[in-house]
Amino acid sequence: MPNLQSLTSNLSNKNYAIIVAGGSGSRMQSVLPKQFIELCGEPVLMHTIRAFSKSDAAPQIILALNGSYHELWAELREKHNFNIQHTVIAGGETRFHSVKNALDTITDTNAIVAVHDAVRPLTSKQTIDESYLVASTTGTAVTAVKSRDSIRQLNGEVSICLDREGIYLVQTPQTFEASLLKQAYEQPYTNMFTDDASVVEKAGAHITLIEGSHSNIKITFPEDIIIAEALLNKKAISGS
Amino acid sequence: MPNLQSLTSNLSNKNYAIIVAGGSGSRMQSVLPKQFIELCGEPVLMHTIRAFSKSDAAPQIILALNGSYHELWAELREKHNFNIQHTVIAGGETRFHSVKNALDTITDTNAIVAVHDAVRPLTSKQTIDESYLVASTTGTAVTAVKSRDSIRQLNGEVSICLDREGIYLVQTPQTFEASLLKQAYEQPYTNMFTDDASVVEKAGAHITLIEGSHSNIKITFPEDIIIAEALLNKKAISGS
Repeated sequence: MPNLQSLTSNLSNKNYAIIVAGGSGSRMQSVLPKQFIELCGEPVLMHTIRAFSKSDAAPQIILALNGSYHELWAELREKHNFNIQHTVIAGGETRFHSVKNALDTITDTNAIVAVHDAVRPLTSKQTIDESYLVASTTGTAVTAVKSRDSIRQLNGEVSICLDREGIYLVQTPQTFEASLLKQAYEQPYTNMFTDDASVVEKAGAHITLIEGSHSNIKITFPEDIIIAEALLNKKAISGS
Repeated sequence: MPNLQSLTSNLSNKNYAIIVAGGSGSRMQSVLPKQFIELCGEPVLMHTIRAFSKSDAAPQIILALNGSYHELWAELREKHNFNIQHTVIAGGETRFHSVKNALDTITDTNAIVAVHDAVRPLTSKQTIDESYLVASTTGTAVTAVKSRDSIRQLNGEVSICLDREGIYLVQTPQTFEASLLKQAYEQPYTNMFTDDASVVEKAGAHITLIEGSHSNIKITFPEDIIIAEALLNKKAISGS
């Protein structure tokens, strides 16, 4: 993983953040998609957008959101006096199509673009800053953490142990040179595209990993809201 | 993964639980090993032992603990009026050697033996019960959860995407027929043995996975105590 240098080298580039809000909320035992669930008094999505607004990279924020939720989002923004500037665009059928729609609004091919899950509200300023910096140097910066657990691969009924060394669990932000990312998203969609790194890799680029945090959880199950609230409350107390 | 049937089929077997307490606590920014850190008012290890004491499998509990902590553990038990019966034995140089020491005290080769990390206090009765049942049928039952994240493998500076399908993150309990486990632990130690499943697999057995829970976290970093407390408090409220 590359070393973090001063962000100033990146100041001449225009930076963007695409926040991808998907999901029907069915796994949360709730009709409300996960990004709208309240976390310490405000929707998850507001925490996520705020995290990017604090970055030294000062990205222009683009929210890809299913059209049927644009009205709800406007209401929530009003209710919570949420004034952080961002552009809302229509999400697509899958995560891939949502990112592609957002990329179509970015015309500056010299830009650096971070893509981030709406339901990862705990990402840190440090990680976001580093992802823009590394991507501006290497073209790609994908946040990941080392697995703490042994890893097994199941084939039918039999599982085999994989060598844990070098195995990373991939998170977001995943940050790229705009030209690289736009070109990668010209490829036809396949369900092998589980994240942006897999799309960019398929297009022939090497993926640079940067160190994330185990706290940067993805709100997937009901207990994740409880975990996220505990981590946020600790952050508020420690000021970290 | 096999279906859960009635536990009655296993009643004729003697069951054991080996609780492995290792670690010097350095990653917790504390001189106190992680298993002694207080979680909702009592040491992590007491929660772990209590979880096994509640199992329908009614295992005899063996705690493998570094000799230098036996006195501290006795003091903590007295302080907290902790009366759940268990045997304390000396831990070894590595996790492997601790488990081997514990196995040496089990003479009944028809027994079913669960091995569990002392620092996984949130394992559920349901998972423990299932692990004894499945191990009594198939010989092995290793708790694991599907990865929620994309997986990448780092080779030098370059990372490649692995197919996430069938990739599991391994937890404990890991439960086995005693004869199988004892025979596996006769092998010479190598640092490729990251858990019991890897030892048993190396001895030639097939590993059956059972579904764990993402809540069954391993207390590794300071924020894990905060997460564990939040999950335990929720459990207490919901009664689940």
